[in-house]
Amino acid sequence: MESNQLALQEKIYLLPNGNITTPKGYTAGGLHCGIRKSKLDLGWVYSEVPASAAGVYTTNLFQAAPLKVTQESIAKENKLQAIVCNSGIANACTGEQGLKDAYEMRQNFANVLGIEEHYAAVASTGLIGELLPMEKINQGIASINDEENAGPARFETAILTTDTKEKGMAIQFEIDGKTVSIGGAAKGSGMIHPNMATMLSFITTDAAVESQSLHTALKTITNKSFNMITVDGDTSTNDMVLVMANGQAENQPLNESHPEWQVFIEGLGLVCEMLAKEIARDGEGASKLVEVQVSGAVTDEAASAISKSIISSNLVKTAVHGADANWGRIITAIGYSGQQLDPTKVSIGLGTIPVVENGMPVPFSEEDAKAYLLKDTIVIYATLGDGNGKATAWGCDLSYDYVRINASYRT
Amino acid sequence: MESNQLALQEKIYLLPNGNITTPKGYTAGGLHCGIRKSKLDLGWVYSEVPASAAGVYTTNLFQAAPLKVTQESIAKENKLQAIVCNSGIANACTGEQGLKDAYEMRQNFANVLGIEEHYAAVASTGLIGELLPMEKINQGIASINDEENAGPARFETAILTTDTKEKGMAIQFEIDGKTVSIGGAAKGSGMIHPNMATMLSFITTDAAVESQSLHTALKTITNKSFNMITVDGDTSTNDMVLVMANGQAENQPLNESHPEWQVFIEGLGLVCEMLAKEIARDGEGASKLVEVQVSGAVTDEAASAISKSIISSNLVKTAVHGADANWGRIITAIGYSGQQLDPTKVSIGLGTIPVVENGMPVPFSEEDAKAYLLKDTIVIYATLGDGNGKATAWGCDLSYDYVRINASYRT
Repeated sequence: MESNQLALQEKIYLLPNGNITTPKGYTAGGLHCGIRKSKLDLGWVYSEVPASAAGVYTTNLFQAAPLKVTQESIAKENKLQAIVCNSGIANACTGEQGLKDAYEMRQNFANVLGIEEHYAAVASTGLIGELLPMEKINQGIASINDEENAGPARFETAILTTDTKEKGMAIQFEIDGKTVSIGGAAKGSGMIHPNMATMLSFITTDAAVESQSLHTALKTITNKSFNMITVDGDTSTNDMVLVMANGQAENQPLNESHPEWQVFIEGLGLVCEMLAKEIARDGEGASKLVEVQVSGAVTDEAASAISKSIISSNLVKTAVHGADANWGRIITAIGYSGQQLDPTKVSIGLGTIPVVENGMPVPFSEEDAKAYLLKDTIVIYATLGDGNGKATAWGCDLSYDYVRINASYRT
Repeated sequence: MESNQLALQEKIYLLPNGNITTPKGYTAGGLHCGIRKSKLDLGWVYSEVPASAAGVYTTNLFQAAPLKVTQESIAKENKLQAIVCNSGIANACTGEQGLKDAYEMRQNFANVLGIEEHYAAVASTGLIGELLPMEKINQGIASINDEENAGPARFETAILTTDTKEKGMAIQFEIDGKTVSIGGAAKGSGMIHPNMATMLSFITTDAAVESQSLHTALKTITNKSFNMITVDGDTSTNDMVLVMANGQAENQPLNESHPEWQVFIEGLGLVCEMLAKEIARDGEGASKLVEVQVSGAVTDEAASAISKSIISSNLVKTAVHGADANWGRIITAIGYSGQQLDPTKVSIGLGTIPVVENGMPVPFSEEDAKAYLLKDTIVIYATLGDGNGKATAWGCDLSYDYVRINASYRT
C-alpha cells in the first residue's frame, strides 16, 4: 500500500484519486449524446471479463423500465460485464414503448462491446414520463469505444442530474494476501430517501465473490447505508445499486465461510457508506451533511426509524440550515417516530454539546451551539434509555435553494 | 335563517361573521399578558353552563403538560365550562414544573370564573422546553373579566403563533325544530401533519349532545379533517381539538339514535373540514391550498395513505409552488405510498386537466396547466382502478418563505 493512503480502518485504505476503474480489469467512460443540452449524458462501465453481480432496486411501485431490464439481465446468470446509464430522462412511466427502448439500449450497448446481451445492465435518471430519444442514444452508444470518451471522471459526470459534484472513490485491502480494490460512483441530489431514491450507485471490485454472497452482502449493507439517507423524503422510480465483482484480484472466491469475509464486508460497507454520505451532502440545495446517531433504542430497527424521523423532519432541516439549536424539533421528531420509547430517558446532543438530558432541556451556550451548527458536517446524537439498539442516518439541511431548484425543475 | 347565509348543504348554513361565540351561551376573549412582545397571547372561551365535552390529542409521545391536565379535567365528568389557551410557549418538555404550572393555570382560571376546577381546560402553543412565565399568566388570568378584553376576535388572535390570519367560523341548522349553531376557532401554521400537529381547534355548539356520542363523533370526524392536513409533516407535542356542547339550543339530547343525528354529524364535519382547510391554506410560507382527492383505492384507508403521501411530498409541494405541472412527482408519491395498487390503472388530473391515464402520460397544454396551478386553490385528482376507497387530504405549497420562517424561528 502507498504511504499517503488514509487508513479507514485497520488494513483498509482510501486511495487518493480512487474511482470505479481502480479495481483491476475495469474501464469506464462518458459522452454527450444530446439528451441534455451540453452536459455529458451517457456513461458506461466495462469489465474485461463477466463479473459476479448483484443489484438492489427501488421499492417504488412505478419501477422504471431500465430496472426491469437490468433485473432480467442479472437473473439469468447472476453476472454482468457492463453497465450503461443515461441522465436527463428516466424512462419511467413510459409503458410498452419504454420497455422496448430499454431493451434496445441494452442490445445496442452489448453489440458494440461484443458481449452477451444479458451481461449488460441499463440505468436511466432524469425526468419521468418522457420517452428516451433512441436515435441519440444509439448514436452515443456507437461511440463508446472512441478513445476521447474514455475515463472514469467522464462516467462520474455523465450519470449526474442536479448533483453539484462527481461522487467517486476507491479503497484497497488484502484478502488471501492479494490486493483487492473496491471502487464506486454514485449520483443523488433530489428525491433521496430511505428505501432508495433517485439514487444510482455503481460499485466495482476485482475481488472474486460468489454471487449469492454478494447479493446478501449488498442487501444488508444497503439497508445501513443508501437506505439511511434522505434529502426530501421522496423515493424515486429509478433507484438502483449495482455491484460487479470480476475476480481479477485472484483471491479465493469469497463467501460467508471465507476467513476474510468480514474484511470484504467492511470494505464494501465503507464504500457504500461513503457514497451515501456524499449523496446526502450534495442533496439539492444542501449546504451541509447532517448525521443522526441514535443509540439506546429498544432494537436496531427502532433506532433506525427514530434516526430517519429526525433526519427527515423539515423543521429540523430548516433549523440546521439557520444554525438554530432548536432541539424542541428534534425531540418532537423522536416523539412522532411511532417507536416505543421512554420520553423521560431521552438525551440529545449537538456534537459535543448536550442540549437535552432525560427529556428535559439543559442549559447550553447558544453561541457555542450556533458555531457548531455553522460547520459543514453536523452530528445530532439522540440517546435513549430503552435498550441497545442503534442506527445512523444521514441527510442535509433544507434551504431556499432546495425550493428554487424544485419549483422549476422541468421548465 | 337569514337570507344572506350560504347554504353549505341542504339545511346547513354558513353564517356571515360567525365565530366561536355564535352558539348560545358562550363568550370569549383575549389579552396580552406579556409572554409575547406585543401580540395578544392569552385567550379563553366560557360557557354559561357546564357543557358536554370531548377532546382528541396529539399522538406525539412527548405530550405537553396542558394536554395531560385537560384530559384529566374531561375524564372526571366529560364536561367543560371554559378553556384557557396561551401562545408563545408550549409548556412541553418541561417535566414536573411544567405540569405544576399547567395545574396552577387551570386553578387560577377556574377561580376567576367561579367554576369547578375540572370544568376548565388548558392549552398552550409555542416554543418547546421553556417554562411558562407564571406571574404574567396569573396577572393575565386576573383580567379576563375586564370588558375591554371580551370578544371572539380577540380569542382568535390570542391563540395564533406564526399564523398569518385568524381562523373562525360558525354554521347553523335545525334539530328538533330548534336552531342549532356550531362555532369554531383554530390555529395552525407550522408542524401541521396528519395525526394532529401544532394545531389547536376549539369548537362550541349550543346543541345538547350526549358526551359519549360527542366523543365518538369528534374522533371519527377528526380523522377525516384535522388528521388529513399537512404543512410540513411534523406532529407536535401540543395538538388538541376540544368540543363543548352546552345544550342551550334546547333540542332533545343528541346521540346516535336521534333521528337528526346525521345532520349534526354533517354540521360538525363541515366545521372541522373548514377549519382544517383554513389551517392548511395558512401553512407556514404557503401561497395556496392544495387538495388531493384519491378515489378507486382498495379501501378508504389505502386512499387516505395515498392522499397523504402526495400531499406530504416536498417535491409535489415545490412543483405546485412553481406552478410546474410535474405529474411525475405525483405518480412517484403514489408509488412509494406503501399501498397496494395497480400502476397501470392510475390516472391523475390537475383540476379538470388530465395529465396521466392508466399509468401513462397524456398530452396536455402546459399553458393551461400553469394557469391552473397559479390559482389559490389547487385540486389534484388521483383515480385508481382497484376498488371503491376514497379520501381527501389538504396541504399547501412549499415556498422560500417556509425556509425563511423556520430557519430562524427562535432567534
